[in-house]
Amino acid sequence: MDSVQEVRDKIDAHRQAIDALDADIIRILNERAELSLAIRALKPKAGMELYDPDREERIFERLGALSDGPLRAQDIRAIYGALLKVMKEIPA
Amino acid sequence: MDSVQEVRDKIDAHRQAIDALDADIIRILNERAELSLAIRALKPKAGMELYDPDREERIFERLGALSDGPLRAQDIRAIYGALLKVMKEIPA
Repeated sequence: MDSVQEVRDKIDAHRQAIDALDADIIRILNERAELSLAIRALKPKAGMELYDPDREERIFERLGALSDGPLRAQDIRAIYGALLKVMKEIPA
Repeated sequence: MDSVQEVRDKIDAHRQAIDALDADIIRILNERAELSLAIRALKPKAGMELYDPDREERIFERLGALSDGPLRAQDIRAIYGALLKVMKEIPA
């Protein structure tokens, strides 16, 4: 049986691992945002609409199927719903 | 001046790069979810509340400051608001 202090130390170690993952996520999200902005700038030149709900739906479907847990398709959809909304609204 | 087809090819290439980043994001989000579940299981043994709004606020502050654009602190907060809500609600 671990002491309360040992359990707290484990929690702290997990939190540090989460902080490192979060830094990776922020870096990748910014790379993704750069690509979204590039696409947004190109679309009018290709005669394409800025907003493409079919592409969004394909992203939800693909990533939901890609996730092998603990996150379920509905969790990915909740996170990516917020993420794609932000990507659409960031200033160029 | 690029032809419409050349512009569409560029868009497709950017979308493929986004798809690859999304697969990385899903992998990292699932690693993060595993750690969240481990912390959730440990907290009662440490006499800690399951929900820690101060920890959430520190995450928002830290990651907002970490982002060097195009995503702004408010964008990170919008994405992470959805992400942390999901992390709290996934079944153990």
